[in-house]
This record gives sequence, structure tokens and C-alpha cells, in this order.
Amino acid sequence: MALIVQKFGGTSVANIEYLNNVADRILLARENGHQVVVVVSAMGKETDRLVELAKEAVTSSSTRRDLLRRETDVLLSTGEQVTIALLSMILINRGQKAKSYTGSQIRIVTDSSHTRARIQEIQTDKILHDLEGGSIVVVAGFQGADAEGNITTIGRGGSDTSAVALAAALDATECQIHTDVDGVYTTDPRMVEEARCLSRLTFEEMLELASLGSGVLAPRAVEFASKYNVPIRVLSSFNAEAPGTLIANESSQDKKPSQKSDRNSKEAGTMEQPLISGIAFSKDEAKLTVLGVRDVPGIASKILGPISDANIEVDMIVQNVAADMSTDFTCTVSRSDYEQAMEILTGVSKEIGAREVTGDNNIVKLSIVGVGMRSHAGVATRMFRALSDESINIQMISTSEIKISVVIEQKYLELAVRSLHTAFELEEN
Amino acid sequence: MALIVQKFGGTSVANIEYLNNVADRILLARENGHQVVVVVSAMGKETDRLVELAKEAVTSSSTRRDLLRRETDVLLSTGEQVTIALLSMILINRGQKAKSYTGSQIRIVTDSSHTRARIQEIQTDKILHDLEGGSIVVVAGFQGADAEGNITTIGRGGSDTSAVALAAALDATECQIHTDVDGVYTTDPRMVEEARCLSRLTFEEMLELASLGSGVLAPRAVEFASKYNVPIRVLSSFNAEAPGTLIANESSQDKKPSQKSDRNSKEAGTMEQPLISGIAFSKDEAKLTVLGVRDVPGIASKILGPISDANIEVDMIVQNVAADMSTDFTCTVSRSDYEQAMEILTGVSKEIGAREVTGDNNIVKLSIVGVGMRSHAGVATRMFRALSDESINIQMISTSEIKISVVIEQKYLELAVRSLHTAFELEEN
Repeated sequence: MALIVQKFGGTSVANIEYLNNVADRILLARENGHQVVVVVSAMGKETDRLVELAKEAVTSSSTRRDLLRRETDVLLSTGEQVTIALLSMILINRGQKAKSYTGSQIRIVTDSSHTRARIQEIQTDKILHDLEGGSIVVVAGFQGADAEGNITTIGRGGSDTSAVALAAALDATECQIHTDVDGVYTTDPRMVEEARCLSRLTFEEMLELASLGSGVLAPRAVEFASKYNVPIRVLSSFNAEAPGTLIANESSQDKKPSQKSDRNSKEAGTMEQPLISGIAFSKDEAKLTVLGVRDVPGIASKILGPISDANIEVDMIVQNVAADMSTDFTCTVSRSDYEQAMEILTGVSKEIGAREVTGDNNIVKLSIVGVGMRSHAGVATRMFRALSDESINIQMISTSEIKISVVIEQKYLELAVRSLHTAFELEEN
Repeated sequence: MALIVQKFGGTSVANIEYLNNVADRILLARENGHQVVVVVSAMGKETDRLVELAKEAVTSSSTRRDLLRRETDVLLSTGEQVTIALLSMILINRGQKAKSYTGSQIRIVTDSSHTRARIQEIQTDKILHDLEGGSIVVVAGFQGADAEGNITTIGRGGSDTSAVALAAALDATECQIHTDVDGVYTTDPRMVEEARCLSRLTFEEMLELASLGSGVLAPRAVEFASKYNVPIRVLSSFNAEAPGTLIANESSQDKKPSQKSDRNSKEAGTMEQPLISGIAFSKDEAKLTVLGVRDVPGIASKILGPISDANIEVDMIVQNVAADMSTDFTCTVSRSDYEQAMEILTGVSKEIGAREVTGDNNIVKLSIVGVGMRSHAGVATRMFRALSDESINIQMISTSEIKISVVIEQKYLELAVRSLHTAFELEEN
């Protein structure tokens, strides 16, 4: 008998029919002899409905944003509370013992940063007591309470984090994240028909894939799982047959042997590891370049300081070695921030005596991710060659231990993803 | 500076526009220098929406009704939680300091009888602290939490009770119940055009009027107010000009002098008291008579026992003195319970050797209420004469200290109410 945490997101709990499907999944785990703690989100578009009501209520820009944020949490936390009650009712209706808890009731203790609180501690005594008594425990995701009992929420996508944190606190065998896809794919299946569902990923790989826009799992939940070594299994709510994707430490469990060719493997034998796991991309990118920057210490912070002061998030940053005491500095931002960033950098450029600022908001970022590349030279070469074979020009390159990102013109995105998918034989398994 | 509790019901908080009207009312009280604690219900039809969801979730008759009731409370309590958050946001948006609390957060401690819990204790430290700090405190009505922190609700109409209980705990000057009518009327204004809004009533009168279907105030809230001597003022949410109706002890404040004629007054002078305050009626009545019951001790409980065992509520009970060792026993029940009650009594009738059971579900109950009748003979006579003048036959009579109820045929209801309204000069003031 194992203790399993099962999380079901908004799409999976959108109505009573879907909640009955969720109950099927829970009962399956119970029939397999497991103790189950369920974490749920608000139903479908409920959070959006509540946000709309709040927008209608708050018409002016109040100076008491702290008070407003407190009330926002009181409002939004009702979304999950409705779901836990209805799901528990359905389970009881089916003859099970079930008990629901809000974040405050469990005591999921957070700091007091309303609308973006951080989990500090989870009390497990009530849950363990109920599990012992044969109950299924249904917990509201996304929410907690601070030390004074004020209701808090932990930010969008927070239910994933709630589930992982509960799994860590309860020392659960596995945290299952049930979502509306079959698992984590090698790339977006809407773009590449041959995209394959991965059976296994490391936390690092998932982090790189998630933050790059795969959107299956909140990056924060993966970080949490990595920190506390909680295996996550991404499963489909709607397809009970799909095996899903296990996200865990490389060493934590036996790896699934693959039929990959020697060329695309970390080492020969049964413990093979593909070179790369997936291809992620982001269309929400714009690049700005400050040309003719003097190559002196502190210049990068002079350029980026005013950008971050304006709460603009910078993604890639590239600065090449200087030639003639002068260099070019390039960064990418969200497209919605492009114009403001251009304005700021134009001002900065004058201050620091740079030549000029150029920009382009017609670009995309493309990344290949895989722990396999750590120990393998030639991955970058293969990537660049594949793009070159299609005459796709690479505008920027940035690399990490397990990721290579390039910026290319937007119109080449699909062609690039498909050719890389083929070049790295991701359709095979 | 006084401390006032203001309660706003579901119709008064049905949307953001209405909530802004509510905020106007609260700000008016603040401008008059009062500290304000606000109690709100769920918005409009929100509770009904949640109940519908629950019905969809629970399809079979579960044996674990205790568990289901616990979840029902988790579900329903979200209704008020949405309202407190939105109203607080609106108040903050208007430059006020405001803070919302659920029943659990205040610690409105109840027993553990889910869906019909009783309030045991209210902790006032948080509220008093916030009021001192200049905040408007917005509390969710209808809900609390038991000693273990399980969310409870205190039954429909419970927000009135929450408001009165808070007013009692905080020793408030007044508990204002804002509703969709201008106050308590002498009778239903839809039936009698001349019906008049009463400026003042005693708790007892309000209890008799409320339980008879005036529907303005939950009887339980009036009982609570009477027990703790909390003056209640019924006001219109939509008509700020209407003075409303004050419900308080007879002696607690100066009475408004009336221009009533000598004939219809308790005593001459400025402290006049009308003979009767109002006329209430209920159409949801059916009567059943067991004929030829042997007049022996214990026979009434033998008849009523099986009825109450079937959870059927009995309203009026009439048994006249016996003639020839035999008597007739009559009671009234809700029309929806009529057929079941008939079936039960037919069985009982055979067991106890009674002659037969007759019934009629085409009747109404009509009551006149007023503390003035306590010290005045002739009220009953005047009532019966008025009905007789219209050739309306009285089928049953039942009296209490401050009430006389009669059962008549349904088709005479409007005629009877109008003629009594005139006979007791209720249109005058």
C-alpha cells in the first residue's frame, strides 16, 4: 500500500460529469490498495469568473493595494472550495468515506504575500488521521493561510505546487498531475505530427521544457519536487490508458530501456539515455540590441537596471567579446514589453554613449533540451547543421548545461521544429 | 459614536451595482460617526446555484448523510465568502479601510450539526481590533465553524441570526436588517393596498408575524434578539428614505405617539399602543380531523406520535371538550405533507378505534397579532364579527397571548384580510 497524491486541474474538474471521471481515477487507485490524497483546482473558468467580478468591483487604482490583495485571496480561494466539496460529495455518493479541507483547514501555512504567497509548512496530522480511518482526503489547491489565519493564494498554477508540497510533507510515493494532455511531448504535437509522449524526464529537463512554454506543469512545482525529490507523474485525466510521463531524478528509479540507435545514446547498453528529450519554443519574444557599447565593467547593469526597474522581465541576454573596445549587447523581452523596453534602452544608450539601439519583434526562440547533451559533444553542431540545411539563419545563441536556445525569424519556426525533431530522431523510441 | 451591525440579504447584494448601493449605506453610517460591522448573505441566486450543483453530484441516497452534510457546508459557505470579498474590495476602492472575515476566521463557534448548526460563542477580539484601527469589518453570514474547525452553516435565513448574534456579542447599539421591503407591514401590501409600514413592534409581535409568513426576518433571529435584547431595525436596501420598522422591547425606548382613536388604544395619553399590529396569513395549510376519538389520557400523543415520527411538522392543534366520552381531534400540516399525514392518521384511527378521518387542503390560516390585545377584551369578538359580516365561516380557532388564528376556506382569504384590516383601523396611524 502506497500513499499517492493525485492532482486534477481546472479542465479536468470543469463540471459534475468530469468530476465523476475524476472519482473513477481515485477509486482505481483505491482499488489498487493505495491511500489517496487529492488536490483540485477551481472548476473550469471559475477563477476567471471571479477575477471578472473583482475587476467590476475595483474601478479605480486604489492606494491600498495590500488590502485589495487580501480580499482577492478571500475571493479566489472559494473556487477550489467549491470543487473539494462537490468531489467529496461524489465520492461519498459512491459509497466512499471522503473529507474535504481548505488550505486554511489543513493548515497549509504560507507567508503573508497575498496573491503570491510561499508555502512555509504543511501540517499533516488531520490528513494522516483521516487516511488511517479509511478516508479519501480532498484538499483545495492554490491556497493556504498565513500565521494569523488570513487566507492566502500561492499564484496561478499554484495547485501543482500545492500537490507537490503535500506529497513532500506526506512523504508520498508519487505525485500524479492529471491534466488534459497525455504527458510531456518531445514537442508541440499540434506542430509536429510525429511528436512522441516521453515516458521519462529529469527534473532539470522538465524545468527547461516547462519554463520554455510546454505549459503542462508549473515550473515552481517542478523546482519544489526536485528540491524534495518527489517523483511526479504527468497523466491524462481523460485517457486512463495513457502511461504518462514520469519526472524524477536520473538515479531515483530504473530507467526504461530504449531502442535508440547507438549514435543517439549516452552510453551503450540497457541504460540508454537519448541525447535530447524535447524541443520547446516561445513565440512571445522580441529582441533589442544596443550597438557600440563601451567595453568597461558595470556596463551591463547600467543597461539592464532601468529595464528591471520598469518590471520588464528579460529572457535571453547575449553579449559577445569586444572588438575595438566596443561591443554589442542584446536581450529578449516579451512582445508586450517591446515598445517600452525600446524607449528605455534608447534613453540608456544616449547616457552611456552607445551608438544606437535596434530591435526586432518578429522573432521566436527555439530550444533543445536534454540531460544527454551534458556528456556529448556534437549536439550543438547537429542542431546548427539541421537549421543550416533548411537555410534558416540563427540570430542569437545561448546555452546552458542541458539546453541550447536559438533565436530565429518567426516564419521559420515550424520548419525549424520539424527538422530538429527529425534530426534528433525524436519520433523514434 | 455607536457600534452598528448592518445586515444585507441576498437580493440586496445580487450584483456589483447593488453592492455599490450597499457601500453607500455603509458609508452613510460611517459619515454619521458610527463604527460598522457588516454581515452579508450570498449574492442573489448563488446559494440556489450551489444547491443545484450538489443535487447533480449526489444521485443516490447515501447512507453517509453525516459526511454529505459536512461537505454541503463547505460548498454553501463559499457563497457568502464571495460577497464579503467583493464588498470589501468596493469599500477599499472607495478609499475606506475594510477587512473581510469568514465565520471560521472570526471564530463564530457553533456545534457540529452541519447544515443547521447552532451558534455557541463568538470571538470579538479581531473585530474590535479592526474597528479600533478604523476599518469597516465585513463578516460572512450564515456560517461558522465547530470546535475542530469544520465549516458549518446555521440553516437558511441564518444570516439574520448571524447579524443579531454578532450585535449581541459586540454589544451593538442596533442591528439593522436591510431587506427588499420598506419594513414590516400591517399585512401583505400586495393583498391590501392600504397596508401600512409599522414604525415599531415588540419581539413577540414580530415572532408571531414572522412565523406566520411575513418572511421579512427569520424567527430564529428575532428569538435571539429578544433573548439578548438587541434592537433590530428592518430597513429597505433600495429606499434610503424609508424609516423602517424598529423591533425592540416594549420598554426599551420611547414609543412613537400614535394618532389612534381612543377605542383602538391600550390607554389614553401619549403612550398609546394599537390593539393589534398586523394580520398574517398562510396559504400552505391543510387540516385533518380524527372523528370520534375516545376521550382518555394519552390519546393525543398516540395520534401525533406517528406524524412527528414521519418528520411532518404540525402547526395548529385543536381538540374541543368531549361529549359522550368521545371527541374530535384536528391539526393542520403543510399541504405537501397532506397525503402522507392522511395515510398515517387513517392507520392510527383504526388502531385507536376512532370513527373516521376527514381532511381538507383547501384552507388558509389567518392571524391577528398584537401585544395590545393582552389587556383588552373584545378583540376576538371584533374579529369574529368582521368575518361574520362577510358571511365567512370560521372552521377552527386557536389563540395565544398576543395572537388569534382562524382557519377559513381559501377563497375567502383576501376578503377576510381586507375586512379585518379595516375593522382594526390598521390603515390609520
